[in-house]
Parts: sequence; structure tokens; C-alpha cells
Amino acid sequence: MIKIGIVGGTGYTGVELLRILATHPQAKIAAITSRKEAGMAVAEMYPSLRGRVDLAFSTPDESRLADCDVVFFATPHGVAMAQAPELLAAGVKVIDLAADFRLQDTATFERWYGMAHTCPDVLREAVYGLPELNREALRTARVVGNPGCYPTSVQLGFAPLLKEGGLIDAAHLIANCASGVSGAGRKAEVGSLFAEAADSFKAYGVKGHRHGPEINEQLRRIAGVTPDDASVHCLFVPHLLPILRGIHSTLYARLTPQGQAADLQTLYEGFYRGEPFIDVMPPGSTPETRSVRASNVARIAVHKPTPDTVMVLVVEDNLTKGASGQAVQCMNLLFGLPETTGLTHVPVLP
Amino acid sequence: MIKIGIVGGTGYTGVELLRILATHPQAKIAAITSRKEAGMAVAEMYPSLRGRVDLAFSTPDESRLADCDVVFFATPHGVAMAQAPELLAAGVKVIDLAADFRLQDTATFERWYGMAHTCPDVLREAVYGLPELNREALRTARVVGNPGCYPTSVQLGFAPLLKEGGLIDAAHLIANCASGVSGAGRKAEVGSLFAEAADSFKAYGVKGHRHGPEINEQLRRIAGVTPDDASVHCLFVPHLLPILRGIHSTLYARLTPQGQAADLQTLYEGFYRGEPFIDVMPPGSTPETRSVRASNVARIAVHKPTPDTVMVLVVEDNLTKGASGQAVQCMNLLFGLPETTGLTHVPVLP
Amino acid sequence: MIKIGIVGGTGYTGVELLRILATHPQAKIAAITSRKEAGMAVAEMYPSLRGRVDLAFSTPDESRLADCDVVFFATPHGVAMAQAPELLAAGVKVIDLAADFRLQDTATFERWYGMAHTCPDVLREAVYGLPELNREALRTARVVGNPGCYPTSVQLGFAPLLKEGGLIDAAHLIANCASGVSGAGRKAEVGSLFAEAADSFKAYGVKGHRHGPEINEQLRRIAGVTPDDASVHCLFVPHLLPILRGIHSTLYARLTPQGQAADLQTLYEGFYRGEPFIDVMPPGSTPETRSVRASNVARIAVHKPTPDTVMVLVVEDNLTKGASGQAVQCMNLLFGLPETTGLTHVPVLP
Amino acid sequence: MIKIGIVGGTGYTGVELLRILATHPQAKIAAITSRKEAGMAVAEMYPSLRGRVDLAFSTPDESRLADCDVVFFATPHGVAMAQAPELLAAGVKVIDLAADFRLQDTATFERWYGMAHTCPDVLREAVYGLPELNREALRTARVVGNPGCYPTSVQLGFAPLLKEGGLIDAAHLIANCASGVSGAGRKAEVGSLFAEAADSFKAYGVKGHRHGPEINEQLRRIAGVTPDDASVHCLFVPHLLPILRGIHSTLYARLTPQGQAADLQTLYEGFYRGEPFIDVMPPGSTPETRSVRASNVARIAVHKPTPDTVMVLVVEDNLTKGASGQAVQCMNLLFGLPETTGLTHVPVLP
Repeated sequence: MIKIGIVGGTGYTGVELLRILATHPQAKIAAITSRKEAGMAVAEMYPSLRGRVDLAFSTPDESRLADCDVVFFATPHGVAMAQAPELLAAGVKVIDLAADFRLQDTATFERWYGMAHTCPDVLREAVYGLPELNREALRTARVVGNPGCYPTSVQLGFAPLLKEGGLIDAAHLIANCASGVSGAGRKAEVGSLFAEAADSFKAYGVKGHRHGPEINEQLRRIAGVTPDDASVHCLFVPHLLPILRGIHSTLYARLTPQGQAADLQTLYEGFYRGEPFIDVMPPGSTPETRSVRASNVARIAVHKPTPDTVMVLVVEDNLTKGASGQAVQCMNLLFGLPETTGLTHVPVLP
Repeated sequence: MIKIGIVGGTGYTGVELLRILATHPQAKIAAITSRKEAGMAVAEMYPSLRGRVDLAFSTPDESRLADCDVVFFATPHGVAMAQAPELLAAGVKVIDLAADFRLQDTATFERWYGMAHTCPDVLREAVYGLPELNREALRTARVVGNPGCYPTSVQLGFAPLLKEGGLIDAAHLIANCASGVSGAGRKAEVGSLFAEAADSFKAYGVKGHRHGPEINEQLRRIAGVTPDDASVHCLFVPHLLPILRGIHSTLYARLTPQGQAADLQTLYEGFYRGEPFIDVMPPGSTPETRSVRASNVARIAVHKPTPDTVMVLVVEDNLTKGASGQAVQCMNLLFGLPETTGLTHVPVLP
Repeated sequence: MIKIGIVGGTGYTGVELLRILATHPQAKIAAITSRKEAGMAVAEMYPSLRGRVDLAFSTPDESRLADCDVVFFATPHGVAMAQAPELLAAGVKVIDLAADFRLQDTATFERWYGMAHTCPDVLREAVYGLPELNREALRTARVVGNPGCYPTSVQLGFAPLLKEGGLIDAAHLIANCASGVSGAGRKAEVGSLFAEAADSFKAYGVKGHRHGPEINEQLRRIAGVTPDDASVHCLFVPHLLPILRGIHSTLYARLTPQGQAADLQTLYEGFYRGEPFIDVMPPGSTPETRSVRASNVARIAVHKPTPDTVMVLVVEDNLTKGASGQAVQCMNLLFGLPETTGLTHVPVLP
Repeated sequence: MIKIGIVGGTGYTGVELLRILATHPQAKIAAITSRKEAGMAVAEMYPSLRGRVDLAFSTPDESRLADCDVVFFATPHGVAMAQAPELLAAGVKVIDLAADFRLQDTATFERWYGMAHTCPDVLREAVYGLPELNREALRTARVVGNPGCYPTSVQLGFAPLLKEGGLIDAAHLIANCASGVSGAGRKAEVGSLFAEAADSFKAYGVKGHRHGPEINEQLRRIAGVTPDDASVHCLFVPHLLPILRGIHSTLYARLTPQGQAADLQTLYEGFYRGEPFIDVMPPGSTPETRSVRASNVARIAVHKPTPDTVMVLVVEDNLTKGASGQAVQCMNLLFGLPETTGLTHVPVLP
């Protein structure tokens, strides 16, 4: 059994992590910390966990995280990097669901997250936790920067094209994305109220969204170019959907003559062959977010709507494959377990 | 033209009041105050009002409310009673959408609202703003306590039975009610988040809700008994609906033998004959909240599901007939206008 | 492994049954029939099942149901009773998710379902599949009438009171219930359209709903009175909620003096002690439907809102504990498996 | 008063037309026809119209449409072209909310709508009813082809760029659009069920949608090129939103060097100056669909998210500016009324 600590855990990625770990056959949750809610039973905050998670939130001091095998951080940005060095020194692996170990460029991190990066050494060692693109490095990682929800779907959608090379005008990628409201977290903010977000739809973050630099840093890595090579650039436009869970990305790229001649369906099916959590759908498909609800699956459909355009549709559950499910997938890799262990949930439809 | 001031107005009853007044042919909005948002254009907060309301929020000092004909308070409880005496002295009429002038019993007010009532004199003069039951008093009122959203629907539903007398076991009334989330206001609270309230349903306030004493005080007045006569009592159970607007009340009472013999449909149709905003539906109807969306209409259906039970179904828009529409209906009465002036919106369906 | 056949399965109880059985460790789905969709892959209709259910719909002839250990009927009413005798003769157990084996009174069945009951013998043998109230009979049953979704929640809520006896005025029970739209099934009907049901709420079925007689037949059985004893009667009023899944029942009864003196919390906790799927919540709780989403759990809270009223709040997922989850729970009993086998899903929240 | 006939009217564009006309000061609805519902009161089908529309549906024979000043067709495609010639001969103007008079190319019409066009003469005379781009022609029109909901938003968004010329690579326009479910009409289809469309999001119509050719025919007209000039082409990708009303279009185009140097905000503000129903929002805005709910307004925001990309965000209510509101706007022009007559609804928010 893997002895697990969770720091934070009062937010939606936290409760999703608990939902998954509660039935994970190799997981034993040893402690879950929250300074603010210390002493409160987890199941009091989340009645869905009554009878399934018997822990109470504890203070960081009480919780003896150093005795764990792995600690998940489901915290605001900045918390993991403060605690990671000590945990690593104690031999504990760290999986951060926030952004502390996502962006390799610390200047970019500081610009977008408004704080200095306090442990660039750990960052350099950290592995970006997208198993489909980074599996081998994850097997031996001590620190994982779990990807952002949007970046997961955008990378999964563009990767086959970028890895192959020469098929698209990579300097003018468009990622027109939409996310359910749970992506905004369990924070009391007016914009996330039911009465503000229900029965409506809008773009947001158009002046710049933190997932933009993450997307571009990773797409360049996938394409094999340097981190600031403008020959790979994605315009990322997020929209707010009145749904609980789910991200839908509609990706566009202009095809080169070589790309126009390519069999893109075959390319995608080949690229993701054998991946347990990636479903390349048949030609002509339009995946819906509910088809992956509460599961760790991403579904992808590739289209050629005009002779020189490729359009890729990607759906994932932002809390599962886009956050906590992916974090558990990484944990499985870190501990040598089959990657699907504890992640076999069938999507909930309707 | 009636010169109108609005105190508060950043919440949902505020924006609804502005929506209505923006096309009211006799209304001129002179000022809208908000200490916190002073200087911000109203239409910046509510883009739906762009081009329709050109005012900016102003501080109470700038706004010269004493020059208005009437001032609406769309504020938290306690604000209206602090300012009403001065406005009344200046000859300004006051309509409070909060609770300051609803409960005649100040001890009850203090218990439920956690503050002392600072102007019982004004309270004594205030008229409870339910025009269908209180029309004549409103014509000459200077101060109106605009009813709560739930109490409006419960009173409209039970009034014909209680006024008639002898038909029901009035000591054991049940009001099983459900409201859309806008009823909770535009406050940043976790419980009102989309991710908390969407795709779910629950009862709340079961240990006691502020609208309970208001309902009972008024039902007793309608029944013509004293304020603490337990022979009239309504158990009020609110539920939270994942909809934007709308209240649905399912009311139950046990019929007396006299009630069992009565023609309840005729009773209701007669009671509300000529009322412009009350629609007694045909026998067998099940009104839906969307049938009154964004209008000042309440629809009522009366049923006898067992020989000795009467069930009354009532729908209203909590922000319109349940709040701001009713307040404008009261204003029309206060100023001798036809009651429907500016309130002819056809419900928005779908 | 239990060899399972499913008749029907294109509706929501069908896809829910498949979701559950796909990870049930003792279940092997041998065939799923649909005359209309024969030849279509199940996962083509329900992309959520891609990679998890590899079967195609087959015709009844092809599907060799007689070779199965158990056949579930997720069909319109009337189908199971036509096929059950032959299956039983072949030694196959039958679990009907429709109403064919729910109502013991065939005259009532005929009145409400508009068809004669064609196998009253099988009906007499059938066990009503509510394990919490009927566990022993289920262990040896050959035919199960799986309860209706509403009746499950109403019975679970009233059972402790009725079994105890003497506590309430059982002749005037009220069940004010609300269900998500999936309860109406996957039928193309105008009333179930998104544009009709979203952002709205209403009562329906007020002239009589098929679950009314089922509720009353069973409540009388629980109370130990004869099937037409009017001393036990429940007024059942269903409402339509704009949610996908979930039933919320608000139950009311008048307490006798004995009932007023009783400790109802203790009564409920004792009654359901050890039940794996029933969660009696702490005093003062208001269960929400999302707290049981996609799980087989029902949560119950008991309140005494006035000295002589008991109010019981019950939530369940109408497709899981209210239909397919309960059917699998019955199957586990029929085959001597631990009752929770394959039913350990943690509710999905948010 | 304009004497109005409505053919069809049982669908959502019909009820929206009635909602608007019920308070239009110059409109008198003389007849509303529906073969299928003849005899049923309109308000029985749409309780929102109780007390506001007193007509019953009548058969086409009874309804004496030839006596009307104008007849609206809120019918399936093909009905208007069958009846228009006779009405025009009788001096009645015709406004078709379906597609019969939208596409000037009859071959395209036949390919996409699966029927021959039966009155190309009338089609040639018909004016495409987008007042902002076609106002003068509408003043003298006898037949109006009311635009599709998506095409309205796409044209309003791209028109300033295309009219100006030289600013964008017009051959590679992208319209990433999303519509509420009411856009699918009031037809009993599985895909439009609440349980299918709620809490989910997907693209659809990716193999081709009828609004695609309409968009391209009109964009070419706006750009002043021939109908099959590939130098103007828009890839149109619709998505289905779980909202009742509203279309959101996210439009992308690559800027030419000339376009990169242009002041696009000024261009848009100038282009739409004085338009009563077009709101060009301040720089940086992200319009939300609810900000135009139930009103005839479209809001537009123009962005330059990368140096060589223009992104235009457009919102409209698909049933109002996207259908019935626009039809009434056209009617006002046809009859010489101020364009805003009867269309002053303030958007309903929340």
C-alpha cells in the first residue's frame, strides 16, 4: 500500500482526488491537511464521502507528512514549492496539482503567478506529468508538476501533428477551449456564482491566461524547438461553460501541402495506439464532454473540414484527466503500478 | 414623471428594478447609490443595461435622495430603517425591498435579523406591500415593506382559503417551497457557486428561515386572528433549485368537512377576479416557473388530490413578483398610476 | 462469473446497468438485445462505454438468453411478463426494471398500465426488490420486480415510522418528491426537451401517477395492514427537476402523542444500522441529490420541524439506487454475493 | 395597426414572435395557423401567453391570411415558398423565418434542404433581412428571407472587416460558434432531450451545416465578390451549449500587414455607429450571452490577441436578434415604422 498525504484538499481537485483514492486498491490515505479546516471531518465538508473517507483535516504539524510515500498538493500556487524540498529530503515523492512545477521558465512563472520561484533546483528535476508524452521520465521521478487542465487537452490534441513535423503551420495554432465552472475552483467569487454562470456563455481571460505560457512551453518541447521559438505558437482562448465538469477543445491549424496529403486519422490512431486513457474516435465523430464525465479518459476526433485545415476536437473531464485522475496516473507510474490502477471508472452518462 | 432614487442596486433585486424602471413610462431614475462602487457606471457592472441605464453609482452624499419622490432600498437588512426617517421628513416616500418594514413584531425582527429595530414608529406606519391583499392601504402609504419572495407566493396561495374561513385545518399548513439561486443574492458565498448548486437539489433552512415568521405573521392577519394565535400556523420548508429565477410553492392543508364540500376552483377564481397579475389556472393545471419568467405574474392552481386535502400550486418569478416587480407595483399605487404601468412584460419562454 | 443477459438496454436504466456491470467483478454480459438497434455496437449509441462494453445489440433470437444465469429487463412495461415464464422454465432468473412484477394487485396494474397482466403466477412468486426491507426473500427469489424510483425513496423514508407503528397519522402521509429528467427515460418527447425542462420547475402527474399505487401497496405491507386499508395512505406529488439524476423526497407526517415523545433519530439509526447503502445523516442535515450522484447510496435525514410533525428528507440517484444499482444489489443477493459487490462507486461531486 | 398573420407558430420562433408582437404598439395579430393544433388556444400550448394572446390556432382555410398586411412564416422549410406567390398577389407582404428566401443560389438550396425551389422569381425579389447590412432594400421589400441565427452573428462580426477590404486573409475565416438548445426547435428528438444536452458540450454538424453556405454566400456579398469566389471563405463550426437561448461566436481571421496597422476598435465603432441594436463594446470586453437574453441586441467585441490575428466575439439571442426579433425589425422597416418599435426589451439578467 502506498501511504499518501494530501496537502489542501478542500477544493474540487481535492475531493476528486479523494473520490479516486477511496477505491484505489493500493492507496492508503494517511493524512489530509488544512490549516483552516483542521479538526473537521472530510465527510462533513463533502457528504459524498460519508462512509468512504473517515479522516479529518489536520494541521500540517500533526500530519507527519514526512512519513508518507507520496504527498499530493491540492493547494493554491506557491504552497508546494515551499514544502517540497523538505519532503524530498525525507524521501517523500511530491505531486503538485498547482502550477509550481509546471513552467520550466521561472521568469514566466513569476510574471504569471506573481511570486518568485523559491526552489528552481527542484523545478529542474520535476517531471511534467503528462504520461502519454512523458511516461519514461515519470517512472523515475521524485517530483511531478501535474499539468493544467486546458494544457492537457491542447497538448493531447496537437501532439501527433507536432511530433510528426512538417504537417501544419505551427506558428498559428488556435485552441478555442471551453471549461466547466468547477475549473474555477471552490472559491467564493461572484463570477462563479450559479446566478452569474448558469444559462450563459462567454470567453474570458482574453488578455492572457496562465495556461497560455504553459501550453506554448510544452508545445515547443513536443515540437522539439527551443522554448522561445516563435515558429510554434498557439493562440489559446478559454470560454466558460455552464456545466460542472468537462473541457472541450476545438483546435485549428493550417495544413501544409504535406499535411494536406497526410492520412491524419491513421496518424492519430498510430500515435495513441495502446494508450489506456486516450480514445481516438472514428472519422466524423464529435466527442461530447459527458462521454468522459468522472473518468480519466480523453477522447479525440480529427477532422479536415477544408482541404487546408485540420480541426481536432478533444474532450476530457477537467477534474479527472485534467487534474486529479492524471495525478493518480502519475502516482501509479512513480510506484511501478499498472497505469490504470484505481482509474477504471466508467464515465457517468447521463 | 416620478423622480426615483435607488439605494444599493448592485444586487439582483437592484438590476431587476433597473430593468423594469428603464422602460417604465413614468419613471425617471435620478440616482443610484453604492458606497463601494461609487463612480462605476451601472452598465459596467451589468452589461445587460448598456445603452439603457446611463447612470453611475454615486455615494449617498452626492446623490441628493431627498430631492426624489420615492427611494427604493435594495440593500441589506438594516439600511432602510437607518435612512427612512430623514427621507420621510423630507417628503420622500420609501419602498424597502429588504426586511426592515415587513415584520410588525419588533421582537421577532430582532431575533431573526440580529439587530434592534431603530424606528418602530415608522414600522407602525409602514404598509406591507402585497397589493392583492392590501391595495387600499398602499394607495396612501408613505412607507412600504416589500414582502419576501417566499411569503408572497405562500400568502397568495393560502389567502382565499384563510379569508373564507372554516375550510381548512389552519393550524397545520405546509408550504413546501423551492426557489432559484438568484434568491440568495449576488454575494460571493460557496453555497451559491455554480459548482455547488448546479445539477442538485436540497432542502435548506430547516432549523428556521427568516421568511417563516413573516409568513405566519401575515397568514394570521389574513385569517383575522391575533399575531400569536396558534390556530393558524404554517410549516415552511424551502428548497434550493438549480434555476436562475422562479419560486414554486406546493401548499398543503387538511380540509374540514365544510372545505371538502366547497367548490375551491370557484373560490379562487372569485377571490382573484380582476387582479391583473394573478392567474388562476384551469382545474388540473400544474404551473411551471418558466411560465412567469421575468414577468410580474403569479399563477395559481388549486387541487383536491384526496377528499380531505387541498393542494395549491403557486409560481412566481422571485425577482419580479417576488421582489422588484412587486415594488414597482406598489410604487404605481403610491403615485396613483394604473397598477400595471411599466409591468406589462410578457414572460420569457423558453 | 454470472452470465448476464439484458433485454432492452437502449434507455437510461440500460446504460446505467452497463456502467455498473462493466466493472462488476463477477459479471459477464453475454448478450444485450434490441430489436430496433440490432447490429449496432452499444458503444456507438453510448460513447461513454467505448472500450468498456464491446457488445453489439442483438435480436432476441440471436441472443440465446436461455443460456444466461440471469436476465435483466430494461424495457417498457409488458415485455418482461411476456418472456419471463419461458426464461424461468429454462432456469434463468429474471430481474425486471419495469413495472411488470411490482404491483401485486393485477387489477391495479391493469388500470395504471393499460394492459392485462399475462402471468399472475409468476407475479405471485416475484419478490419486490427493495433489499433493505425484503432481503431474506430476495436471497431465494427467481423473479424480482425492481421497485420504481420514487417508491424506493418514499419507502426508505417512511419505513422506520411505519414498522414501529403508533407514531404517526399514517392515513395522511405526504410525499412531496422531485426527480431529475432522466427519470422520464430516453424517449423523444417534447416535455423532456432541454428547452422545455431547463431553468424551470413544476409539479406533474397530479391527477395520478403510476408510482402512487405502488407506494401505497408497499407502505401498507410495511405497516402490516391489508392492501386496501385506508388507515395507511400517502399522497404522492411528483415534481420535475432540471437536473440529470437524482430524486429528493420531502416526506411529512403528523405525529401522534407517542410519536412526539419518541426519539426519531435513534429510531432511524437503529432501523438502518449496518445497511451498506443507507446513510442516516446527523440531526439537522439536509441531504442534497449530488451527494449520491452515480452511487447506490440513499441518504436520509429525519426532522421534527414542529412538535407534532415529522419531516423526512431522502435523496437517491434515480438511475442507481432508484433503478439499475438496486437491480444489481438484488442480483448480488440472488447469487449469494456480498451485497456491495460491484456497487462501491463513490458519489461524483461536484 | 398592422394586421398580422402567422403561419406555424407552435415552435420557439413562433412563441418568441408572439411574445414580441403582444406588446408591439402597432401590431394586431389577426390569425395564427397550425393544421395540427387547429382549435387549441395558443395560451394552452404556451401558458406564458395566458391573458396576453387570446387567439386559437386556426386552419389555413379559416384564417383568411390574404386579408393581412403581412404574414410571418414560422414553419419548416418549404412552406413559405408554397404560399408566398398567392399572398404577394393579394398584396400581402411575406417574412419567412425559415430558409426559403435566404439562399439566392437555388442549386445550393436544393442540395442543403433536399427540395426543389418552387418560386425562383419570388426568391430573386426577396431581400435578405439583415437590417444593419441591408436596410434600404428592406424599406421597399415585399418578401423577406429572415437570416439564420448563426449567419446573423457571423455576418455582424465579420462585416466591418470585409467591407473595409484588404485587412484580413478572407479566404481562411473561422467561425467557432455555440448555440443554446432552443436553436434546434421544439421537435421531439432524442438529441435535444434535457438528459442528452444538459451538463455537456460538443461540436456538431462538422460534416456540413445548412448555415455554412448561407454564411459564405452573404460574406461574399458583403465583400463584394462573386458568389463562388474562394477568396472569401469561412469555416463554420457550430457547438451545442446547455443553455436555453443565446449564440456566441468566436471569429478568427489572419490580419494582413494593412490589417495589423489598422485601428480595429475604431473601425467597428464607426461601422455600427447609430445602430440601435448593435453594441460595440469597449476594448478588452468579453460579451456573455445572458447580456442580450430576450432582447434584440447583439454585442460585439474586437480583439487583436496576437499581432497578426483578429478575434471578434459576438453574442445575440438566437430567438430574438437571431430570429423573431430580427423579423419584427424587418417588419418595422417594411411598414415605415421606427426600427425599434416594439423591440425595446431590456435583456433579462440574471
